[in-house]
Amino acid sequence: MTSGFNDEKKGGESCSNVLVHNPNLDAMKEDILYHLNLGTATHDLPAIFGDVKFVCVGGSPLRMKAFIEFIGHELGLDEPKADYPNICAGTDRYAMYKAGPVLSVSHGMGTPSIAIMLHELIKLLYHARCTDVTVLRIGTSGGIGLKPGTVVITKQALDARFLPRFEQVILGKPVVRSTDLDSDLAEELFQCSKDFDEFETVISNTMCTMDFYEGQARLDGAFCSYTEEDKQNYLKEAYAAGVRNIEMESSVFAAMCKLSGLKAAVVCVTLLDRQKGDQLSSSHEVLYGYQQRPQMLVGHFIKRRLNAMSRGVLSSPDADKGRHPSRPEAAGAGGAADLRQQEQVEQQA
Amino acid sequence: MTSGFNDEKKGGESCSNVLVHNPNLDAMKEDILYHLNLGTATHDLPAIFGDVKFVCVGGSPLRMKAFIEFIGHELGLDEPKADYPNICAGTDRYAMYKAGPVLSVSHGMGTPSIAIMLHELIKLLYHARCTDVTVLRIGTSGGIGLKPGTVVITKQALDARFLPRFEQVILGKPVVRSTDLDSDLAEELFQCSKDFDEFETVISNTMCTMDFYEGQARLDGAFCSYTEEDKQNYLKEAYAAGVRNIEMESSVFAAMCKLSGLKAAVVCVTLLDRQKGDQLSSSHEVLYGYQQRPQMLVGHFIKRRLNAMSRGVLSSPDADKGRHPSRPEAAGAGGAADLRQQEQVEQQA
Repeated sequence: MTSGFNDEKKGGESCSNVLVHNPNLDAMKEDILYHLNLGTATHDLPAIFGDVKFVCVGGSPLRMKAFIEFIGHELGLDEPKADYPNICAGTDRYAMYKAGPVLSVSHGMGTPSIAIMLHELIKLLYHARCTDVTVLRIGTSGGIGLKPGTVVITKQALDARFLPRFEQVILGKPVVRSTDLDSDLAEELFQCSKDFDEFETVISNTMCTMDFYEGQARLDGAFCSYTEEDKQNYLKEAYAAGVRNIEMESSVFAAMCKLSGLKAAVVCVTLLDRQKGDQLSSSHEVLYGYQQRPQMLVGHFIKRRLNAMSRGVLSSPDADKGRHPSRPEAAGAGGAADLRQQEQVEQQA
Repeated sequence: MTSGFNDEKKGGESCSNVLVHNPNLDAMKEDILYHLNLGTATHDLPAIFGDVKFVCVGGSPLRMKAFIEFIGHELGLDEPKADYPNICAGTDRYAMYKAGPVLSVSHGMGTPSIAIMLHELIKLLYHARCTDVTVLRIGTSGGIGLKPGTVVITKQALDARFLPRFEQVILGKPVVRSTDLDSDLAEELFQCSKDFDEFETVISNTMCTMDFYEGQARLDGAFCSYTEEDKQNYLKEAYAAGVRNIEMESSVFAAMCKLSGLKAAVVCVTLLDRQKGDQLSSSHEVLYGYQQRPQMLVGHFIKRRLNAMSRGVLSSPDADKGRHPSRPEAAGAGGAADLRQQEQVEQQA
């Protein structure tokens, strides 16, 4: 397996833990992070982002705004009726919010969409000279053989043929990259999950597909050339390969974070059991409750980490144990915007 | 080349021109178009959408709102200060607006994102029993060997190896689909373009990639394992294959519209010449002006078609000739929302 670089360690420009692998960047007079509407000549990136330690990413802009309000409240950073402005105002491609050391960024749906954001995010962290950054994708997914609402922490991101790889076409030629994620981080998140008694959490493989309907063997797309039996057999094969959930971004997320030296994890809730159906017919309230779970788990993890760091016990999984974890509802900015966020049900499962 | 269906004509459920290829759909009690927040049990789709003749799609939700205001004004459908509500309110995955026979829908960035929308749009048109629908993608792109601001009407959508195909993985196996577009429609659009003397329009091939940075041989991503010379050679190869612009959605758009019997076209403006650079450093005003051009051309086309239809001269390319085409600015709903749209610069090139 090749990353597309002759020598990853020598080839990269290292800046205290956030790596870029592009010798051109330092020679550029200005770097315009076009889809984020930010740039090195227009923004003081070290001043704005230099203290970032956690980046949480997810598909929906409204959900990522809800997350920053939740985590800001959890960390005691917000005032009553605190408002977190969209740092990427001026574009509707992505939305970005910040609360202390936590950045919350939306990435749209599918690997190409998240890859554009990650290229620019990695350059942002590099230009801002950030160190020791952890990146967490919080999302939704379809489950296989799990009770709906179960949270899956990804062990390995597999492709639609159940291989732990992401194929990137460069100059018309395929380059295959590893999709390994940080196993210690996954374990630390799993330990955190034990503090929640209201939902189950597992560590398992996640299948990342390029399509939501035919690519995930759904029977309800505009096109379907296979039978229910074909579908069930495919899901069984996935299950045998250790896959317990299916989404559309984890493979390139894992590959790009690994190349950049960023510790990364994928935490997705399952909205349905794909062996039992394809349509998302659960009530709005039920689906909304499910999609809060990855936010609750990751919020709890960040609090524990920060508490441990402030006590000099960096990243101890046992730090802060016994404190009752919180729910996103606790973040009460109130008003119409809040209501719209609550009406927002996660759209990718 | 196989579409994934044994017999496209026999296998499909035909409903007056909008085809689905899924025998399961008619047996479903309800079809939830999840990412559009619409459904057959909750919405009277024939009543809401039955008159749709033109569907315009593009990446950015704000741009698609601006387009519906423009076309609504052009067609004389709006009242002063007309407001077009987002039909997909309740989700932030996609936005959808309607003015008479024109539907305007956003699709995000990349083939997976547009494919989710198209599956649900095709089912929507099928359930609504729409007939004779034309689908037009209006977007932005990077050019090769063209003056920035040139509008490209796509002849064929090619992949990163310059082949007119889209590979869809179904049940873990690759299925290759044709990306042919309607040549008569492209020619009709080209004829329309002759009424504009302020910008150039060409018909040529479009390369559709899965990535914006490495996938398009950019030198300014977080990772870059090739030289400027490698980049230039790759762009030269693309040029030799007839490619004049690069974007990220045309291949699956062409493939899915073809399978559904929808006449389709891709009309994208080039924001820069990739042989001369990678970064989008033109001023906001210049880029904003460029991104209006596909809207102007497609708006003019729709007006001519509707005028021809009302005179019983359906789809005559010469109908309505000589009338001066309009610019999107003419649609003046005014106010803060308008301003935000004008501040919105297209983000994908």
